[in-house]
Amino acid sequence: MTRSRSRKARIEELVRLARKLGIPVRFEERAQVDRAAGTREHQGVVAFVSSAPAANFYDLLKPRPAGSAPGLLVLLDGVEDPQNLGAIVRTSLAAGAQGVVIPERRAAGLTDTVARASAGALAHLPVARVTNLSQAMEEMKEAGYWLVGLDERADQLHTSVDFKIPVGIVLGGEGKGLHALVRERCDFLVSIPTTGPVRALNVSVAAGVVLFEAVRQRRETKKATTDAHG
Amino acid sequence: MTRSRSRKARIEELVRLARKLGIPVRFEERAQVDRAAGTREHQGVVAFVSSAPAANFYDLLKPRPAGSAPGLLVLLDGVEDPQNLGAIVRTSLAAGAQGVVIPERRAAGLTDTVARASAGALAHLPVARVTNLSQAMEEMKEAGYWLVGLDERADQLHTSVDFKIPVGIVLGGEGKGLHALVRERCDFLVSIPTTGPVRALNVSVAAGVVLFEAVRQRRETKKATTDAHG
Repeated sequence: MTRSRSRKARIEELVRLARKLGIPVRFEERAQVDRAAGTREHQGVVAFVSSAPAANFYDLLKPRPAGSAPGLLVLLDGVEDPQNLGAIVRTSLAAGAQGVVIPERRAAGLTDTVARASAGALAHLPVARVTNLSQAMEEMKEAGYWLVGLDERADQLHTSVDFKIPVGIVLGGEGKGLHALVRERCDFLVSIPTTGPVRALNVSVAAGVVLFEAVRQRRETKKATTDAHG
Repeated sequence: MTRSRSRKARIEELVRLARKLGIPVRFEERAQVDRAAGTREHQGVVAFVSSAPAANFYDLLKPRPAGSAPGLLVLLDGVEDPQNLGAIVRTSLAAGAQGVVIPERRAAGLTDTVARASAGALAHLPVARVTNLSQAMEEMKEAGYWLVGLDERADQLHTSVDFKIPVGIVLGGEGKGLHALVRERCDFLVSIPTTGPVRALNVSVAAGVVLFEAVRQRRETKKATTDAHG
């Protein structure tokens, strides 16, 4: 009975702390708690945590501070593999992007696997989930963004687009590419000039190639400006 | 006894075929065969196969046919993760490289995992294993290659190197970078201009960024030449 009373006290303490911090608390039948825990070997409490809180999409569209680089966002249309999502978050952060936008459906969740594959970048880069990706694309256009979709059938190369303006880079799922509704909303469709019998790149590698082409172009401008002033 | 004789006949047939095809055959004690098979549930024969035959390093150094692009090889110094090796093989093939060079030690083997991660590219791109990577680098230099090592501490950017000459791109292992002996043998050390709190890229993404910078530069030259002639 002592053990049981001590557990009750511990749970009451947890509930008090959770309420103080604004964390919702729900009381359920034992069987329900077992199911949520995935085991009967638990201590009567299950916490639902997210590896990273989803960011607000509209925060990503806010005007950037004067003097900072033009906006750079990455939109993922159906990237379902958590390793790829994590790698893309990592590369986006390293390339100086402000965030990644993913749809609520047909996308990898922000799990521990994603956090690990991002090498910690998920804790630093906002990832916003939107109900409707095509709708989000329209809102980005209104906020001054140009949308560049990667499509291996496109004639225009990724190096021929101007990345020195606010840009959203749109990438499709592995082996499926962009959905028709998403493709139609892109301002430019570009391809990476691959060759040989296995032409499609892994989506996280393709993201790196396009993001660092944007970085290259933006640094060239900065260098040219510095040279002119120097 | 019929079953046993039939097995003996089948094994004799196998041995005859193997010898005809030049495949070495070795006879061992039952216990040894059990160990090699990893189970006692086998049919008395174990075949040792490689997912992809290793290529000959010296074949990769042979002069290229007139009119083809300058040589492009990728050297991996301690890339131990088979997913990364597979992804690099895939990207190297798609970027038009002639092959990948890996050391015999401290490297992922050419396993099924590598073949799968390469999306089939391993069957098309020669991967050569060398006993001594620094020695192989010296031989590449003699064959006219310039060696570009990726080192996140380097001041020179990967975009400022000339990739329009025969080039070997040298990449280090995840989180460890290039070994001192390998770094010293590079003609150029370059870094990708990353930013923020997680600056190192995944090695397969870094390989893609550098390889497609080489592709960009080589296409620019081709375009300029075509324009001049057109």
